[in-house]
Amino acid sequence: MSVNLTAPSRESLKPVAGITLGIAQAGVKNPGEDDLVVINLPEGASLAGVFTQNRFAAAPIISCRKRMHSGVAPRALVINTGNANAGTGRTGEVHAESICSALAEKLGVSPMAVWPFSTGVIMEPLPFEKIIDALPAALNDADERNWAAAAAAIMTTDTTPKGHSVVREINGNTVTVTGIAKGSGMIEPNMATMLAYIAVDATIPKPVLQVMLAEIADNSFNRVTVDGDTSTNDAFMLIANNRPDSLAVQSQADVNFAPLRDAIAEVAVYLAQALARDGEGATRFITIEVSGGKTRRECRQVGKAIANSPLVKTAMFAGDPNLGRILAAVGYAGIDDLDISRVSLWLGDLRVVTQGGRDPEYIEARAAEIMAESEITMLIELDRGEAVDQVWTCDFSYDYVRINAEYRS
Amino acid sequence: MSVNLTAPSRESLKPVAGITLGIAQAGVKNPGEDDLVVINLPEGASLAGVFTQNRFAAAPIISCRKRMHSGVAPRALVINTGNANAGTGRTGEVHAESICSALAEKLGVSPMAVWPFSTGVIMEPLPFEKIIDALPAALNDADERNWAAAAAAIMTTDTTPKGHSVVREINGNTVTVTGIAKGSGMIEPNMATMLAYIAVDATIPKPVLQVMLAEIADNSFNRVTVDGDTSTNDAFMLIANNRPDSLAVQSQADVNFAPLRDAIAEVAVYLAQALARDGEGATRFITIEVSGGKTRRECRQVGKAIANSPLVKTAMFAGDPNLGRILAAVGYAGIDDLDISRVSLWLGDLRVVTQGGRDPEYIEARAAEIMAESEITMLIELDRGEAVDQVWTCDFSYDYVRINAEYRS
Repeated sequence: MSVNLTAPSRESLKPVAGITLGIAQAGVKNPGEDDLVVINLPEGASLAGVFTQNRFAAAPIISCRKRMHSGVAPRALVINTGNANAGTGRTGEVHAESICSALAEKLGVSPMAVWPFSTGVIMEPLPFEKIIDALPAALNDADERNWAAAAAAIMTTDTTPKGHSVVREINGNTVTVTGIAKGSGMIEPNMATMLAYIAVDATIPKPVLQVMLAEIADNSFNRVTVDGDTSTNDAFMLIANNRPDSLAVQSQADVNFAPLRDAIAEVAVYLAQALARDGEGATRFITIEVSGGKTRRECRQVGKAIANSPLVKTAMFAGDPNLGRILAAVGYAGIDDLDISRVSLWLGDLRVVTQGGRDPEYIEARAAEIMAESEITMLIELDRGEAVDQVWTCDFSYDYVRINAEYRS
Repeated sequence: MSVNLTAPSRESLKPVAGITLGIAQAGVKNPGEDDLVVINLPEGASLAGVFTQNRFAAAPIISCRKRMHSGVAPRALVINTGNANAGTGRTGEVHAESICSALAEKLGVSPMAVWPFSTGVIMEPLPFEKIIDALPAALNDADERNWAAAAAAIMTTDTTPKGHSVVREINGNTVTVTGIAKGSGMIEPNMATMLAYIAVDATIPKPVLQVMLAEIADNSFNRVTVDGDTSTNDAFMLIANNRPDSLAVQSQADVNFAPLRDAIAEVAVYLAQALARDGEGATRFITIEVSGGKTRRECRQVGKAIANSPLVKTAMFAGDPNLGRILAAVGYAGIDDLDISRVSLWLGDLRVVTQGGRDPEYIEARAAEIMAESEITMLIELDRGEAVDQVWTCDFSYDYVRINAEYRS
């Protein structure tokens, strides 16, 4: 059960010219379930990526990092679910490369043109032969209109596929941006989320695309947390098809850079929020705004401390306005010179805290009403600067425990 | 339900000469429940303390900090449960001081000789008149043999009172150390835990006692985490009764410093582990050893990352050896130059990970057996230095969610 999140339809996710997606069943997940996706890129496309900061980066992440610096033009992304190929040591790296080589051979390209991604259980050997055997089926299935099917095929504990398209007129060009993502637990991206792929019908050289990606990631996936567990497999990939006659952005100084970045960011923010809406066991989607910080970084630090507090999250699940827990999290967020007598807190439009203590006009019954909603916004004003930031998360329910206690069974 | 933790009896907690404890019902908690404790110190006693690092420190913590620097000899500690007097602003500070003044008047001492402590719900006004009204009953009850009753009276969501005594022969003197503590949720002490009081029948000047306390806190309460939420009210107080003829320790260089510190540390470690054994919803007590670090600090950082991971904790609750989650937590613990190919992991005596990947001899059925126990030890070898550390925690069960969703109802 996700919070106010609808699965994308085949029609709602718009094709991005030249980019095709093929889905197959490799038998890594349960029999009869889609678990393999190949994304084919047209010749000349640009690919940018950001990856997990977890030191136990999975084998496919190591392969992707090599490709980031290889200079070889990207031609395909191959994604399996059901097994993360993480904590698998040197053997795992060989398995990831074997899959790339097998797909490269079928496509007639260099193995370095194929980028591997995995998600699922950690520290189990990857059944890489099963994946290789299913590659022809995935290639046969390739179609520009398969984004929604791909969004479903990369899920693990996700309950709802996540995808979004926007179409914008920018400087006389019609630009389509389409993206998909998966992720539900082990979510506190640090650079990127579990897996997200966004494609744009535009011409952007790779270095410019990478800069754009970094800005977008910081304003979307890096603002989400479900449980504070940074995954071993996080990757966020941005593809420009570089179609002739498409809108071109040659540098950061280009007049079209900002509008194009903002169109892509709209898809990224949608997908990032979708991760929290479909957080494991989520019953509420929570937006935490922090304002009046000295820096945006400290605002995010406060937002993340609140968002990751099991006590705040369980109170949100209960709909119980035990709001002192929010103040406690603000207090341990790590701002050493915080003056608590300047801190204010609002829940929706209800002022809860003034000058570090409960507001005289606070009415608990009104707080309970606000917390009964499925979408909750809180605002923390630190009153020590001009910076603001926002973090998205979900509550912490019995089902989070159930899902994670039973994940492998 | 705590894990292998027995409530102390009146007989098991040994008196520390001259220190008396009185218990009463102030009606802050539920009617008919003890919720007020006064600890009387003999003239000339030393008192040392460490307090929460949370910036939203509760009003009584602010009062205690003032007393730390006042130079006034301590004569009484007054502790209430049921209300934390935190997030209560300037009014809360006035309430805490009112209680101290009322008790000081009855004792004929300076208000600065009385130290206040509170624990319970945050951001509710403290019913301080009720507490003042109950002070005479607490004073009438004062007795050297009341440690166990006091341990019960300071509980909030605790299911088992926590107390411990050790009696040691040190350099020809018989030294008694007795302590009590409370804490079950909102537990990740940073300097100290929720509330802990240890008294020793020895003569130790305050500056020396404070040094001893800091060393002990770092090796006991600072090693525990239940949910990563650092409380607003944490305090760990160490009392030396300074009885004539008792063992005297005049400086850190004193030959008796280390044996006395170690005797006190034994009580502190017992109480610290008791907090994790009685962690909210705990079904398992977990010891995480981290060895081969460059510094003890980085070992603790890794231990805490594992201990606070909701994914590791729910797997421990399920008894499901989904042990890759431990590697993921090691990976995001913040050691930037960690070489994962050197990391090993043992669960009990079972080697799980060698060179960053699953050990070839690993048998999952054996891991499941080990995880079915109520006491689980894991060892993470980083193989990059000589430092070691240890962290204690508990698992994460449905009951953690239930307890914290229903806390106020």
